Amino acid sequence: MSKPFIIGIAGGSGSGKSTVTNKIVDAVSGAHTAVIVQDNYYRDQSDLTFEQRILTNYDHPRAFDWALMIQQVDDLKQGLPIKMPQYSFTEHTRAADSITIVPATVIVIEGLFALYDAALCDMMSLKIYVDTDPDVRFIRRLTRDISERGRSMESVISQYKATVRPMHNQFIEPSKRNADVILPQGANDPAVDMITARVNALIALAG
Amino acid sequence: MSKPFIIGIAGGSGSGKSTVTNKIVDAVSGAHTAVIVQDNYYRDQSDLTFEQRILTNYDHPRAFDWALMIQQVDDLKQGLPIKMPQYSFTEHTRAADSITIVPATVIVIEGLFALYDAALCDMMSLKIYVDTDPDVRFIRRLTRDISERGRSMESVISQYKATVRPMHNQFIEPSKRNADVILPQGANDPAVDMITARVNALIALAG
Repeated sequence: MSKPFIIGIAGGSGSGKSTVTNKIVDAVSGAHTAVIVQDNYYRDQSDLTFEQRILTNYDHPRAFDWALMIQQVDDLKQGLPIKMPQYSFTEHTRAADSITIVPATVIVIEGLFALYDAALCDMMSLKIYVDTDPDVRFIRRLTRDISERGRSMESVISQYKATVRPMHNQFIEPSKRNADVILPQGANDPAVDMITARVNALIALAG
Repeated sequence: MSKPFIIGIAGGSGSGKSTVTNKIVDAVSGAHTAVIVQDNYYRDQSDLTFEQRILTNYDHPRAFDWALMIQQVDDLKQGLPIKMPQYSFTEHTRAADSITIVPATVIVIEGLFALYDAALCDMMSLKIYVDTDPDVRFIRRLTRDISERGRSMESVISQYKATVRPMHNQFIEPSKRNADVILPQGANDPAVDMITARVNALIALAG
């Protein structure tokens, strides 16, 4: 098998990056794509007490186990299967179970910080930043966290102001500079059609 | 023939938009693409004296004959050939000759203001903004105008500060909001490969 085509999809909270990822996967035969969700690579914190763990700033890049993520993406590149970790946001540490991912023609790496790390960026053939206006992103996060996570409006606002927004401006927004293309209106159809055309052409080439 | 797929490619002076256009045309069989260069649609100024004409601000959207451009793009959409005007920057008015453009599967509209007009944007299926940093764009313009147009450094700087830069910030930069995708590093290969994959898929579909 030839080297896989690795696509990075970054963007702020609520930008629509997982919608872009899902549309790409839907548009091509699933057998040809593997999706690496960066949230799975939050650090194992089993050596910390629960009280220590709940202080984790999940919006800071140091919250991730970069070495493991880079190693596993490299393994996929070399044609080796990986055991992608899972993360428990209730236990605030790595879960016991992992998911086996087998090498694929196209690998999508999706996450807030997908375009943050230079070594990871170097492995990517196409770097996409989903750039949705901050007010739209906040509204999406607010409604999602209230309806899906039972959060109060006040707690969403307070977390947004304390960590989500400053970390976005410090680490995520500057990673836009690493992108080959920016989607300024989230997961818009003309942009997604272009990405999937490229992916399908690569899959056709790979036979 | 089905309706053509119309791509708009906008961006500031020196952004690399004509490189993007040329790479798209090179990557597909020329018979399937028609290129509309917006510079050809500067207003006919034959009713003005030469002294009046040289005052034209070519960086302002009112310098263009929008009605003619929109009419001709619509004609191509309807499957009709057009006579694309030519512009003489030495005479500062429309040239006597025109170029016949026949309808094609893919029509590329390229220019500073390609994404400025709402009616034109409405006709496009894919809107691309080539977003190169302003210092890089200025350096390209400076070296090009000195080597290809025999201009002095002083005159390039003075024109840039008087019209190019303010008009860019007032009219071109805001048109980025109309884009489906932004190319933040000019005509970069991963982005161009994606656009040409989409164009080739459309041409294959059109038979």
